[in-house]
Amino acid sequence: MLTQQPLLNALVGDDEIAALLSDERQMAAMLAFERALARAEADAGLIEDGAALAIEMVLDNFSPDWQALAQGLARDGVVVPALVKQLRKAIGEPHGAKVHLGATSQDVIDTALILQLATIIPVFEARLESLQSALAALSKVHGAQSLMAHTRMQQALPFTVADKIRIWAEPLARHRKALAAIRSSLLVIQLGGPIGNRESFSGKGDAIARAVAKHLDLGLAEPWHSGRDPLVGFASLLSLISGSLGKFGADIALMAQNEVQEVRLSGGGGSSAMAQKSNPVNAEVLVSLARYNAGLVGTLHQALVHENERSGAAWTLEWLTLPQILLTTGASLRIANLLVKQVSFNTDRS
Amino acid sequence: MLTQQPLLNALVGDDEIAALLSDERQMAAMLAFERALARAEADAGLIEDGAALAIEMVLDNFSPDWQALAQGLARDGVVVPALVKQLRKAIGEPHGAKVHLGATSQDVIDTALILQLATIIPVFEARLESLQSALAALSKVHGAQSLMAHTRMQQALPFTVADKIRIWAEPLARHRKALAAIRSSLLVIQLGGPIGNRESFSGKGDAIARAVAKHLDLGLAEPWHSGRDPLVGFASLLSLISGSLGKFGADIALMAQNEVQEVRLSGGGGSSAMAQKSNPVNAEVLVSLARYNAGLVGTLHQALVHENERSGAAWTLEWLTLPQILLTTGASLRIANLLVKQVSFNTDRS
Amino acid sequence: MLTQQPLLNALVGDDEIAALLSDERQMAAMLAFERALARAEADAGLIEDGAALAIEMVLDNFSPDWQALAQGLARDGVVVPALVKQLRKAIGEPHGAKVHLGATSQDVIDTALILQLATIIPVFEARLESLQSALAALSKVHGAQSLMAHTRMQQALPFTVADKIRIWAEPLARHRKALAAIRSSLLVIQLGGPIGNRESFSGKGDAIARAVAKHLDLGLAEPWHSGRDPLVGFASLLSLISGSLGKFGADIALMAQNEVQEVRLSGGGGSSAMAQKSNPVNAEVLVSLARYNAGLVGTLHQALVHENERSGAAWTLEWLTLPQILLTTGASLRIANLLVKQVSFNTDRS
Amino acid sequence: MLTQQPLLNALVGDDEIAALLSDERQMAAMLAFERALARAEADAGLIEDGAALAIEMVLDNFSPDWQALAQGLARDGVVVPALVKQLRKAIGEPHGAKVHLGATSQDVIDTALILQLATIIPVFEARLESLQSALAALSKVHGAQSLMAHTRMQQALPFTVADKIRIWAEPLARHRKALAAIRSSLLVIQLGGPIGNRESFSGKGDAIARAVAKHLDLGLAEPWHSGRDPLVGFASLLSLISGSLGKFGADIALMAQNEVQEVRLSGGGGSSAMAQKSNPVNAEVLVSLARYNAGLVGTLHQALVHENERSGAAWTLEWLTLPQILLTTGASLRIANLLVKQVSFNTDRS
Repeated sequence: MLTQQPLLNALVGDDEIAALLSDERQMAAMLAFERALARAEADAGLIEDGAALAIEMVLDNFSPDWQALAQGLARDGVVVPALVKQLRKAIGEPHGAKVHLGATSQDVIDTALILQLATIIPVFEARLESLQSALAALSKVHGAQSLMAHTRMQQALPFTVADKIRIWAEPLARHRKALAAIRSSLLVIQLGGPIGNRESFSGKGDAIARAVAKHLDLGLAEPWHSGRDPLVGFASLLSLISGSLGKFGADIALMAQNEVQEVRLSGGGGSSAMAQKSNPVNAEVLVSLARYNAGLVGTLHQALVHENERSGAAWTLEWLTLPQILLTTGASLRIANLLVKQVSFNTDRS
Repeated sequence: MLTQQPLLNALVGDDEIAALLSDERQMAAMLAFERALARAEADAGLIEDGAALAIEMVLDNFSPDWQALAQGLARDGVVVPALVKQLRKAIGEPHGAKVHLGATSQDVIDTALILQLATIIPVFEARLESLQSALAALSKVHGAQSLMAHTRMQQALPFTVADKIRIWAEPLARHRKALAAIRSSLLVIQLGGPIGNRESFSGKGDAIARAVAKHLDLGLAEPWHSGRDPLVGFASLLSLISGSLGKFGADIALMAQNEVQEVRLSGGGGSSAMAQKSNPVNAEVLVSLARYNAGLVGTLHQALVHENERSGAAWTLEWLTLPQILLTTGASLRIANLLVKQVSFNTDRS
Repeated sequence: MLTQQPLLNALVGDDEIAALLSDERQMAAMLAFERALARAEADAGLIEDGAALAIEMVLDNFSPDWQALAQGLARDGVVVPALVKQLRKAIGEPHGAKVHLGATSQDVIDTALILQLATIIPVFEARLESLQSALAALSKVHGAQSLMAHTRMQQALPFTVADKIRIWAEPLARHRKALAAIRSSLLVIQLGGPIGNRESFSGKGDAIARAVAKHLDLGLAEPWHSGRDPLVGFASLLSLISGSLGKFGADIALMAQNEVQEVRLSGGGGSSAMAQKSNPVNAEVLVSLARYNAGLVGTLHQALVHENERSGAAWTLEWLTLPQILLTTGASLRIANLLVKQVSFNTDRS
Repeated sequence: MLTQQPLLNALVGDDEIAALLSDERQMAAMLAFERALARAEADAGLIEDGAALAIEMVLDNFSPDWQALAQGLARDGVVVPALVKQLRKAIGEPHGAKVHLGATSQDVIDTALILQLATIIPVFEARLESLQSALAALSKVHGAQSLMAHTRMQQALPFTVADKIRIWAEPLARHRKALAAIRSSLLVIQLGGPIGNRESFSGKGDAIARAVAKHLDLGLAEPWHSGRDPLVGFASLLSLISGSLGKFGADIALMAQNEVQEVRLSGGGGSSAMAQKSNPVNAEVLVSLARYNAGLVGTLHQALVHENERSGAAWTLEWLTLPQILLTTGASLRIANLLVKQVSFNTDRS
């Protein structure tokens, strides 16, 4: 949910992205990390193969005590200590101590986040593609139609529907290209150990990191515990997406004005007091989401000031903002795809 | 919940405020508005007393079809048209058409919000008071103790624990005073009708407004559909509160450094990799919440650009930000009250 | 200047406010502080009357070495150490050491800022009043004229020009009231000494503070070195002002659309390519300034996290944002007063 | 200047970047655009070669009437109409009407901005490189030295100076790579004509665009009048840079605490009241600049909601924010280069 109020999510939320950000998905990703780590450590000879097998078996069927995790999170500021305690108990002697060996909380949380992002980016890409297709289809049918261009809120000169749609579509192509390009630097593991230098892996840190990356199908990277610019850069890109869609929404709301009537919207929103109205709800919400995301991105940039080897303050600020940015971007793409299907260009006027 | 992830709310959320912001509470507040409106309209002779009685009876026991409300909200951009439709059906002939008479969606939603704020402000005040008491108690016990003052991240001169606590406490007194002062201008009804001029109430708008205000125990105000500065001013005050608590948190985190040891924290957070650590989790989270709220407040100020008589874009942006600001402020006060109980001043050093 | 580019200030700047924020004005205010302090300290018996007289005589004619001040500021992060050095040299033996006695840099800088704010607030008030008068005059002439109200970017119902103007005017009245109310808590001296507890004034700190306040015609307050909420609250109010004017601008830009023609603007902006155009430049700039100020206010709220007894980081962040907020607010008021004179309501349409 | 106060620029400004953003530089870039356009239009046969020669001759020696430009900017919201008027007068008959032919204000302003960015990016790159070298040199000398790592504001485990410097240096390498990569999509001409479809160039628009790009040594792009995501993406990258340097500053301020003493700073800032102090001024200012830029970037993202074919409101908002972002980034790099030279690692402690 984008908001804590289930009802409002019907308007501004995104169930699909919310599901990919759920606690259950995060847990699955964290367990996948611990599983990959144990396997990698066994391959590197840091733990016995029997330990890895025992860990894998337990992780495959692990069901956490969520209540205890919540208490641990409230106490420790991060859920991992409580989770590792539960995992060690579930694995039992003699192998329990071998799970999470050499790793730190941030290794688990950050890698899990990246695994979640790896599932979210394709959703964004598919929605961008779907929107591009819908715009191309609109242009194919109505592209030659005449339309009035407006600059500085005044009529400028006539152009065509195809010109207008090009303006909406071009940024989408840039965003898809950027999403594709960002994968290699963004979708990488986090593995640094307590202070981010892999010293806790008995000299085998780099080999283990390579294996963890391979097992999780992620890229390899030096530890980035306190170097959050790739994440913040990614979030900035997401706000470019919602911003471009906010521009699309603003245009539609202006074009659908009764006095302008350049577009008609099917299924416009009703009013409790004025039966005749057909409100450009989805267009307006795209503007709201663009502005909300712009603000969130500014806040997330504040989290770049990440003191020393791990900042609880900056990291928690990421947790508050980044999921909201993902949900806002998702909702923006979802709604733009609804809106594009509502639009028809008014042929009466040309 | 402050975030869409239940688990994370254990750290940064506020169950009490979340409950006061729940859909159920909003629904109860909206029904209270419609009830008060019907009563006021009957008293003013706009509807028959029998209609008001019928409306009141149904509202007292009304249970909405939430699914249909969600669909209506997604279509109309506001839940009220779907709600009024359900209410009218529940009331039936001949009085169904008399509910919500002359009012617009924004009258319902805004007044309901104000009713919710009227329940939230006392929680904030109580938590501020509790924090003030805890600080006063700390000062009473440890106030005379010597402490090193720091300016620009360097040791300055010695002062006392009482001096330090005064710095934390003084803004809280200002905030309580400001919360008390803001009530009269903030806690007012919204009643304007479709375009905010009360023309829809057949010349009885002002009398009806007075009665609605009286029934709901709120202040009277001219319609403020597109004049959102009192709300944004209130939210700015809330960010002053979380900002002051962020300063408290930043100080504690600095004073609790191993190298500084001016305060000790009981129940510090544990680490998954370093058993010896005692992390100042609550202090750090206060900083995160202050920065998050600062960003949200900047975004909410964007919503002041509220075009014409009602802006769907600006209003939806409020819905995205204001509840988050309330939750963030609540969480900040909750956690500051936890933190103050964890603090002891280190007597070994003086 | 609001921007570093002189040319652009012709559009978005405010020469009057810029002058009140100039280095020369700040210097005069800083010297006024030091003068008042010396007088107060002589009255309290902390320094000899002869010292105060010598200080006053020098301060009355002091002309700083700006180059050396700039170097000092770059080195010390605050201009005061270099300034005090220059002052002491100018005063010479035996009284030189008595200037700035017991005070800290922040006492000077903050009190000087407050003195500058005391000159800026009346400008804002006068501009608000002028705008209110212009709106009232417009309403007197055209108030009865019919106008179409718009909600959610769609035609709603007809109302009147008076209704519309009421919507623009009401927030201005609230802002004037708030500016008047904020004076007593905002326009207060800063006097705390190095660590904000007045210990540096040999037990006479409170008496000296009272006298300094009296000499400077400012209110008295406990030291607020690290308690910046009154300043940030003031800046938030300023963004409410520019936000309300941004709403005015957004309305005018919408109403002046060729397809809507509810208002006509005299002196609209020309285009380099389209001779027929009359662009609503001032209306648009009001929107830009509202959004810029909203962002700045969010950033300034970040500065509430002010670590320990003085934060160079948070304080410098204030210096970067608050003057911009003052200039943006001033420009917004200046331009709104231009715009209101350009507006006429189109009588052809009703 | 980053601020309107010359003095303060000694601390937080950047003279070199300010010079590259000066009105004079913008004018030179605008004239370069008009020159390239005339040449390209002559080559394409849209204007006579004699016209292009006459235009070039005048542009080479043109000195604008700045006062009239300022008046024009205030009236038109953009300086170009007044500038073109001056140019046409200077060129005289019969060729005056041929300057700026087919172009619109935004073509001139945006292309000039890009030309200025093309001079600014190398400065940023050189400063990043210089900082990287200084860090590498520090690591070479002190890298093996032991240092305490800190996580969540608590001592964690010992690591080395080399580990610490790696954390500071790695983002810089990413930023340099990103700056290099962004050139091809950012450093492109703007040429669209009044409504961004090149219809005003008599069918020769694409050929003229290619030639203009070649003459100005910029890339070619479709018109991007209302598609501002490349600019906003660039600004987001700049805030990643200042954010990374803010992290460097925060670390240094923490490490230089008297109680920690992991680094010593030469030339620390003095205090007007406490002679013993050595304040980490540059480190603090890096934090301030990071937070200021983060806020500005959030505001600039608001400008993505760019209505129709040209938004005066959104475009002006860019003018308010982007130069500030450039100056803030420049100042941040300038100061980081000062700070790195002040740092020495304390050998007494290991």
